[in-house]
Amino acid sequence: MAKELEGFNFEQRHGKARVRVGRVWRSKDGCRHFMVEWNVNISLLSNCVAAYVRDDNSDIVATDTMKNTVYVKAKECSEQLSAEEFAILLGKHFTSFYPQVFTAIVKIVEKPWERISVNGQPHEHGFKLGSEKHTTEAIVQKSGVLQLTSGVEGLSLLKTTQSGFEGFIRDKYTALPETRERMLATEVTASWRFSDISSVKLKMPNIHFLPVNISSKDHGSIVKFDDDVYLPTDEPHGSIEASLSRFWSKM
Amino acid sequence: MAKELEGFNFEQRHGKARVRVGRVWRSKDGCRHFMVEWNVNISLLSNCVAAYVRDDNSDIVATDTMKNTVYVKAKECSEQLSAEEFAILLGKHFTSFYPQVFTAIVKIVEKPWERISVNGQPHEHGFKLGSEKHTTEAIVQKSGVLQLTSGVEGLSLLKTTQSGFEGFIRDKYTALPETRERMLATEVTASWRFSDISSVKLKMPNIHFLPVNISSKDHGSIVKFDDDVYLPTDEPHGSIEASLSRFWSKM
Amino acid sequence: MAKELEGFNFEQRHGKARVRVGRVWRSKDGCRHFMVEWNVNISLLSNCVAAYVRDDNSDIVATDTMKNTVYVKAKECSEQLSAEEFAILLGKHFTSFYPQVFTAIVKIVEKPWERISVNGQPHEHGFKLGSEKHTTEAIVQKSGVLQLTSGVEGLSLLKTTQSGFEGFIRDKYTALPETRERMLATEVTASWRFSDISSVKLKMPNIHFLPVNISSKDHGSIVKFDDDVYLPTDEPHGSIEASLSRFWSKM
Amino acid sequence: MAKELEGFNFEQRHGKARVRVGRVWRSKDGCRHFMVEWNVNISLLSNCVAAYVRDDNSDIVATDTMKNTVYVKAKECSEQLSAEEFAILLGKHFTSFYPQVFTAIVKIVEKPWERISVNGQPHEHGFKLGSEKHTTEAIVQKSGVLQLTSGVEGLSLLKTTQSGFEGFIRDKYTALPETRERMLATEVTASWRFSDISSVKLKMPNIHFLPVNISSKDHGSIVKFDDDVYLPTDEPHGSIEASLSRFWSKM
Repeated sequence: MAKELEGFNFEQRHGKARVRVGRVWRSKDGCRHFMVEWNVNISLLSNCVAAYVRDDNSDIVATDTMKNTVYVKAKECSEQLSAEEFAILLGKHFTSFYPQVFTAIVKIVEKPWERISVNGQPHEHGFKLGSEKHTTEAIVQKSGVLQLTSGVEGLSLLKTTQSGFEGFIRDKYTALPETRERMLATEVTASWRFSDISSVKLKMPNIHFLPVNISSKDHGSIVKFDDDVYLPTDEPHGSIEASLSRFWSKM
Repeated sequence: MAKELEGFNFEQRHGKARVRVGRVWRSKDGCRHFMVEWNVNISLLSNCVAAYVRDDNSDIVATDTMKNTVYVKAKECSEQLSAEEFAILLGKHFTSFYPQVFTAIVKIVEKPWERISVNGQPHEHGFKLGSEKHTTEAIVQKSGVLQLTSGVEGLSLLKTTQSGFEGFIRDKYTALPETRERMLATEVTASWRFSDISSVKLKMPNIHFLPVNISSKDHGSIVKFDDDVYLPTDEPHGSIEASLSRFWSKM
Repeated sequence: MAKELEGFNFEQRHGKARVRVGRVWRSKDGCRHFMVEWNVNISLLSNCVAAYVRDDNSDIVATDTMKNTVYVKAKECSEQLSAEEFAILLGKHFTSFYPQVFTAIVKIVEKPWERISVNGQPHEHGFKLGSEKHTTEAIVQKSGVLQLTSGVEGLSLLKTTQSGFEGFIRDKYTALPETRERMLATEVTASWRFSDISSVKLKMPNIHFLPVNISSKDHGSIVKFDDDVYLPTDEPHGSIEASLSRFWSKM
Repeated sequence: MAKELEGFNFEQRHGKARVRVGRVWRSKDGCRHFMVEWNVNISLLSNCVAAYVRDDNSDIVATDTMKNTVYVKAKECSEQLSAEEFAILLGKHFTSFYPQVFTAIVKIVEKPWERISVNGQPHEHGFKLGSEKHTTEAIVQKSGVLQLTSGVEGLSLLKTTQSGFEGFIRDKYTALPETRERMLATEVTASWRFSDISSVKLKMPNIHFLPVNISSKDHGSIVKFDDDVYLPTDEPHGSIEASLSRFWSKM
């Protein structure tokens, strides 16, 4: 990944981002359809210093070629497969097909298309967009070593009670009252890594629902609020990130 | 709504946009929670030329006051109510409480918080964000005349077959082949109006899933594509808007 | 625009949105380049009830054809022209070329690419993206009647003093203190209409910079704030819309 | 940053994101105003396992307290300072004021408010929003060790000529023709690191302006395009990331 240039390290990667592909598979009788929509992001790490130093592109995989490869490989997958399997398949292709490429990083975000039900029956070919997205990342080395991560993003959750926050540090910058009862909301981004090592990573911002309290010097509050009216707000938000891993890991 | 100034018409409205409010109601035993999150947009039409011409704000309802009113009225609603009912309640308040206000336009977008199920049972106080949003607009006149619209936005739908497009005008600007089989996707924005008159309005952009066809002058296509690999794209998109109404209506 | 169906009015329009086109023109010696990037939105009003009622598309202009037309017409413009001129040119084309089309609505948003200066000299072919965008809309009737609007969007302005807000209505919902000194910020959307009639329309939301005031029951505020520290916020915001027109106009 | 739990590593950080602060300074005579708007993101690494394991918050700095600190410290800065200086000041405060905090990561994005000129003269207190944003990140250790990064984001650049792409790998997935002349556009995200070590990091996606080529099997292209009409598109885009550093660095 690195090439020393007169006492400097030079690192680079190039790729194609936001390659969107839809793939439809049909049951044998052609009636029942299965479909996925993937947003694919490819980064290749390769020996291509010549392109930077000598204006020589002979070791460069054009990003347009990477895009085409996504479509060709999607076509070749005659059986339905998971985003994880497709990411690995692409990663293995790039590292084995091109001598110059030593690492391929393939990320996929899957749009949550869900089969529609009509009168309690699943529809043959109708789909509706759901909410949270499934994500995956495959890092494939030329040696065949593989690091696979799966995850979810955009999962918004909320509970209206049974959350408190007490006993925290109080100092001259502290204005927040302690509470045994508050609204708790978050948008989960989570990922978990497979292989010999395994780890879990969580990002759960604290999306605040502030209890509303109106005061007027002129007329006083008209209504005494007791925490059933809230101001939901996106910014600022609390941020909490944590990871748990065997032996070693980086956050 | 209009005031003639030396041969000109002057029209103005002012209000508060993006007022977000969360409201929780509890069952009598306090165990079961019901909640809504609304994004409220208020516009008031009033006689307030003095503010523009003589720098006299004595007829102006401060937009901060409008915001507070949302919270106070939400608090006063001790029973759960719909977004439509809350929009009407606010509109009636502004047009009756302030002599200067002759029309109030209140729009509400409701966030799709859905009760979570755990082991097949609805959870008491846990919610998850869904996808499409419920919308409403109440236009309330001082006379009491009311125009109410309900709708939905962000409803993404797709079908993988049984859509065609044939027999359209062909001329020198036409490159699109005719097809009896294509993917059809859209994001529905719909609204329907109540009262003595009724109308329905639909906005259904045609979100294209383009069949992928790769050709290379050097090597030719490797794979013959037959419409099961698609390029989904947000732009450009086809736009279709239609309205159906009794007697008269404006689009 | 309307077709009566058994006591109902039916109105529809269809078109192509988000058609992006870049156009480069060169000086006679080929050295100096001029370029624009336009995002074009076309809506056509036409007699095409047959498509809805009898599944007959013979009166339909395919939206793909509209998109191609943008590129062909951009190509045909061998001399640099304004977004207004291009919108009119497209509108006249659609209403004259297609017997079925009685009205064309063409909106263009121009991206603010600005020529770069190097060492005080304008660069021949280098551009940098600026901030606010130029907009235009041409509504062209088959009769040739034209209504043209020009405007600007995304122009964010701010002044740190010499704005006040006093003397407004105070009631039990009012908490806002009066002030003779406040920060004022807005994002201007403006448009002006040409022809025998003329009008101006302004949309200037009040983007709040709230003076910060921290209080803690435990320790009291450490710092007395006097309005030089602000909390900028996007929501909620005040909304102000106004239009001024000769004789008649709609907001 | 890490705490071993029965053979696992546990890493966590918490903080407050999207804390927006505006700060105004005045010249001695009060006439000339200087202002900044910063979006501050704070992450603290601290010993607070007790909060996770024993529900004991006594080592927790509330994220609301972090937010207040931003405002108090902004107030205390009576002289105008840079985003870099403010990030360091905050980082040093958190690591020195709280025994539990061993590392503070403070990121600031500065909104590009630019002084307005009226009749060629700089205005005293009027500002207009520009385009690209200045960014900074200070990582401060309790030991006092500091790592400072400055950067820019959102700088969109384009040149209409003198870019080519030739001689790249051609294989069966390659459809892109070679070219000696193309439009080149990008949105630069760059950062550079200070201290004993120094490095530069660049992220320059290739935002494609595709030459338009229309072909119709029915009528053939009407216009022969020769690369002065382009389709600008945001997705997919090429991605290029590179870093250059003395001795060692991570991308």
